[in-house]
Amino acid sequence: MAISMKKIGLMTSGGDAPGMNAAIRAVVRTCAYHGISAVGIEMGYQGLIDNQMNEMGARDVKNIIHRGGTVLRTARCKAFYAAEGRAKAYENFKSNGLDALIVIGGDGTFTGAMLFSEEFNVPVVGLPGTIDNDIFGTDTTIGYDTALNTVVDAIDKIRDTATSHNRLFFVEVMGRDSGFLALNGGIGAGAQDILIPEEHLDLNRLFASLDRGYQAGKSSSIIVVSEGEEGGVFEIVKRVREHYPDYDMRVTVLGHLQRGGAPSCSDRVLASRLGVAAVEGLMAGQSGVMAGLRGGQVVFTPLSDAVKKNHEIDAELIRISDILAV
Amino acid sequence: MAISMKKIGLMTSGGDAPGMNAAIRAVVRTCAYHGISAVGIEMGYQGLIDNQMNEMGARDVKNIIHRGGTVLRTARCKAFYAAEGRAKAYENFKSNGLDALIVIGGDGTFTGAMLFSEEFNVPVVGLPGTIDNDIFGTDTTIGYDTALNTVVDAIDKIRDTATSHNRLFFVEVMGRDSGFLALNGGIGAGAQDILIPEEHLDLNRLFASLDRGYQAGKSSSIIVVSEGEEGGVFEIVKRVREHYPDYDMRVTVLGHLQRGGAPSCSDRVLASRLGVAAVEGLMAGQSGVMAGLRGGQVVFTPLSDAVKKNHEIDAELIRISDILAV
Amino acid sequence: MAISMKKIGLMTSGGDAPGMNAAIRAVVRTCAYHGISAVGIEMGYQGLIDNQMNEMGARDVKNIIHRGGTVLRTARCKAFYAAEGRAKAYENFKSNGLDALIVIGGDGTFTGAMLFSEEFNVPVVGLPGTIDNDIFGTDTTIGYDTALNTVVDAIDKIRDTATSHNRLFFVEVMGRDSGFLALNGGIGAGAQDILIPEEHLDLNRLFASLDRGYQAGKSSSIIVVSEGEEGGVFEIVKRVREHYPDYDMRVTVLGHLQRGGAPSCSDRVLASRLGVAAVEGLMAGQSGVMAGLRGGQVVFTPLSDAVKKNHEIDAELIRISDILAV
Amino acid sequence: MAISMKKIGLMTSGGDAPGMNAAIRAVVRTCAYHGISAVGIEMGYQGLIDNQMNEMGARDVKNIIHRGGTVLRTARCKAFYAAEGRAKAYENFKSNGLDALIVIGGDGTFTGAMLFSEEFNVPVVGLPGTIDNDIFGTDTTIGYDTALNTVVDAIDKIRDTATSHNRLFFVEVMGRDSGFLALNGGIGAGAQDILIPEEHLDLNRLFASLDRGYQAGKSSSIIVVSEGEEGGVFEIVKRVREHYPDYDMRVTVLGHLQRGGAPSCSDRVLASRLGVAAVEGLMAGQSGVMAGLRGGQVVFTPLSDAVKKNHEIDAELIRISDILAV
Repeated sequence: MAISMKKIGLMTSGGDAPGMNAAIRAVVRTCAYHGISAVGIEMGYQGLIDNQMNEMGARDVKNIIHRGGTVLRTARCKAFYAAEGRAKAYENFKSNGLDALIVIGGDGTFTGAMLFSEEFNVPVVGLPGTIDNDIFGTDTTIGYDTALNTVVDAIDKIRDTATSHNRLFFVEVMGRDSGFLALNGGIGAGAQDILIPEEHLDLNRLFASLDRGYQAGKSSSIIVVSEGEEGGVFEIVKRVREHYPDYDMRVTVLGHLQRGGAPSCSDRVLASRLGVAAVEGLMAGQSGVMAGLRGGQVVFTPLSDAVKKNHEIDAELIRISDILAV
Repeated sequence: MAISMKKIGLMTSGGDAPGMNAAIRAVVRTCAYHGISAVGIEMGYQGLIDNQMNEMGARDVKNIIHRGGTVLRTARCKAFYAAEGRAKAYENFKSNGLDALIVIGGDGTFTGAMLFSEEFNVPVVGLPGTIDNDIFGTDTTIGYDTALNTVVDAIDKIRDTATSHNRLFFVEVMGRDSGFLALNGGIGAGAQDILIPEEHLDLNRLFASLDRGYQAGKSSSIIVVSEGEEGGVFEIVKRVREHYPDYDMRVTVLGHLQRGGAPSCSDRVLASRLGVAAVEGLMAGQSGVMAGLRGGQVVFTPLSDAVKKNHEIDAELIRISDILAV
Repeated sequence: MAISMKKIGLMTSGGDAPGMNAAIRAVVRTCAYHGISAVGIEMGYQGLIDNQMNEMGARDVKNIIHRGGTVLRTARCKAFYAAEGRAKAYENFKSNGLDALIVIGGDGTFTGAMLFSEEFNVPVVGLPGTIDNDIFGTDTTIGYDTALNTVVDAIDKIRDTATSHNRLFFVEVMGRDSGFLALNGGIGAGAQDILIPEEHLDLNRLFASLDRGYQAGKSSSIIVVSEGEEGGVFEIVKRVREHYPDYDMRVTVLGHLQRGGAPSCSDRVLASRLGVAAVEGLMAGQSGVMAGLRGGQVVFTPLSDAVKKNHEIDAELIRISDILAV
Repeated sequence: MAISMKKIGLMTSGGDAPGMNAAIRAVVRTCAYHGISAVGIEMGYQGLIDNQMNEMGARDVKNIIHRGGTVLRTARCKAFYAAEGRAKAYENFKSNGLDALIVIGGDGTFTGAMLFSEEFNVPVVGLPGTIDNDIFGTDTTIGYDTALNTVVDAIDKIRDTATSHNRLFFVEVMGRDSGFLALNGGIGAGAQDILIPEEHLDLNRLFASLDRGYQAGKSSSIIVVSEGEEGGVFEIVKRVREHYPDYDMRVTVLGHLQRGGAPSCSDRVLASRLGVAAVEGLMAGQSGVMAGLRGGQVVFTPLSDAVKKNHEIDAELIRISDILAV
């Protein structure tokens, strides 16, 4: 079912992820290619409520494919979760002559998109943009691959100095609810052990791993930890220190540097493909769905599934992590 | 069918690819984990013929997961394509007590592996290690993702200076027979046009694209070219110059820097998974196959298919490249 | 002698260099700090002739310190070397109420600045912005340090694959008239030999070096070559091939990627210091000079010296290069 | 006064610094060039006490110029500060036929070297290897330039995401006693404010700076903090939070990743020059001195001065930091 699309609004929302600019570029240029007006909405849903939006042409998105962050800026917007906020947003949506909305973000972004789409019968397509990779319906999210490279690049540097005896390096990475970054980044970095939320925080497992490493003659070890509460890794270090009073322990907290940086080629291509798919999906009548890439093919998943279903950690990777830390 | 494996030889062969060391580490540590001896063979098949090999323990592969190149070194070996060479190789295979062979490389490597496996009834598993991504049976090959990042990183730098009027930047990337690097790298870098072997060298298409770019107000453009014969890009520049005498044209030839560099996290995880799979595949009775990753799952493909079948460029990506250069 | 400065124009001119944006930012913010209006002139002298210029406030230069290229764009401008062009430029200079000019660039830029300053008695300060480091009056030029890192980063990747026997890797770097990049980059990259314009092109010296390397058991070697005429490195390879028919030779031409990339910290600090010095120098009555950094201190050098005197290669470095290639 | 040198021992000691391997390579190859035996001592002074040392030839240091860490490993050694430890060390020094010692490290390393040189009348030359740049007698220390690039590279990534309102990003960098890394890295990264030990911890100054930034319309700011006691930055955040309860504050602790990474070209050239100078200095009769680079020239400074005199922060840089945060 081909739908007449004359004007499409797009926004980025939630936490930044590398590749968001590549997605914006792809949406804008695909609109230009098909003769559709693209309208960039600033600061996520807040900009829709505040009527901060501008038409964007093909030249407006030049030289952004390689930039971290998002030229449309992003925000978390509480007001949009109230009916009043969404009503104001819809008012602006109509007065600007928009036919549809493309939102780039994560869970929270998609929840807002569903509400908006259902309440006002507005065609909406979501693109998964988050470094956490915790979205169902796509093999990877935009930004995840870049963040993994940032993590291993940081740990490679720590590894250079990890030659003294009895030294433990703790590296806290993002992922409060999801261990993708820690698990894959930890395997990629050759970590001795990886502590992820899915596995809870079993320090006895860590102690066993460290004991094995010590017996195997490892002079020092790197432990990757998913962020928990603030100062979380320091609490863990405190407890490990009680168990190994002679070890020298050092901490790195990567923090927000994981959200930035030039996107990897893989993230740029992913963002480009999904940006094209979002526009052409709307033209073909898609709505209330997220565009993702599974097994190399674009697939559309209902936003309700993207939000509710879990993107599960592959248990095989936990096994592999154990084997390779032998 | 579980097979008793006591000693497994491994080698890297053909052109270097980032992640080969991560694969070596994974094979050696998985052997250690399962109580199997791992024997590293130097310089590919040449080392098997010359009997240059050493046992490798878990500690021998520490601190290599992040290194480009291959600690076992690599070579192309003509002698192995003669029956005499393979006979000598098999002699050393037996005298060293090897039960099986894991070879990391590309097409040529696998062809040799098939011959060896069939002639002497030797269990062999191949791992796809090449930056060209031209192997059937795996979504990506070890090294390809890293090489893509190297390509876009280089072009990002060229883009910084690409602001003068009427200037064309040509970037020659690897891929004599296969346009994966050029096509995906070109999309990731936001190239104006991409010349790949699969599309032949249609300069009229390039001229049309440059004319469109000029009319759209582009001040300068980047063109990605798959390497052809030596000096290939310069020949193209010569012909483009005849057509656009007023354009200023600059050339970058990336060359072998695309084969090196620290592997991306994705390549390390891929190499780690396939390294584990190769050893456990041999233990489970696999032979004459390549371990690859498709849709996130390890799959074994007959080496004959990996070599003969084409890993085709996704035509959709060519269309996307055109849309995004609008 | 304090001079009343109300409005200062600034431009970048000539070839791009990383750190130009950091210099622009420093000039604009130092103006803001001292209550002076800063006016950004587009595309170098061409923008002065075409009257393309805009006031820039402190917020207009946010988030550019880390970007390659120049937000003011740059160009080489033939028209400015004619008296007519400079007369038009001065007309715009006056009509826009400018009191002085800060120009960021190299030799050609400074020559133009001298003419303009003398003809119209206009206060001018130059900042050395070029990757070639061929300016007298400063230990290093803005962009040079970054380009060096780009060169060694590229060669590091080539080195990863440089393990086969009898293979020579040629890397062509920028520097048509000056061997700074090749010599320092070659030492930093551990090259076997370095061919620079100052030493002419003595292939016998190269052959002697390669013979020494071969006798010392080197399996492969990297040779860094300053660019000459187009295709220059290929001509050298041709002649080396006649001498060593059995060697496998590979070529990388870095080209314009050396002009881009995020500036190094050192280049940012240099650009920041010189940007502050340029504005405060004008306020203190400096004119017809270039601000440079020598031995950690800001020094002002007459533009005529900066242009005419040579920044000589340190012969000691050539000796060191020979020792370390032992 | 030329001294006959037949065998020179070298070691790295104290904290790791990028470029130590380049220095090792330069020492070993300069020895080879001059027909002197080079002996690599493992783990700093500990290896001298434990007699862990091996001869190193020119080929033993191939492919290390670009690697972080140190192939000789490093340690802090308490035993060497006791007379008994040094006596044991001297015993090994003699029994191995060493004529002199080259030590690469910082303050502590040089203090040990002085004691050893004086007690046993042993020729010793020190090379400044530390990321802290807190050594008198050289413009920069080996590793400092690389660490600066690591710091700005990390902050660049954080900057990508620094677009929300009222958000403060705190980045803790190394430098317990010395603010070089924080001050230069902060200027290079365009930080809003920089807290260094030399300036004590004046939070009122920080509050004034943040208030100015807020009034200037800055949406978010980056604050660079020199490490203090463990958890130091978190204590500062706590106090800032009391003052700005509505600000969202995020913390990155760079930690040991600042000690690793491939050395910058500048650090490699510095290490190469000083490595050559150390060997040739010993040959010329130098002893009890450190080789440094000042104003582009190699200079030898008595170890006692290198250790006791302060390498002072340039106050001008603090002023520049203030101007540019306008």
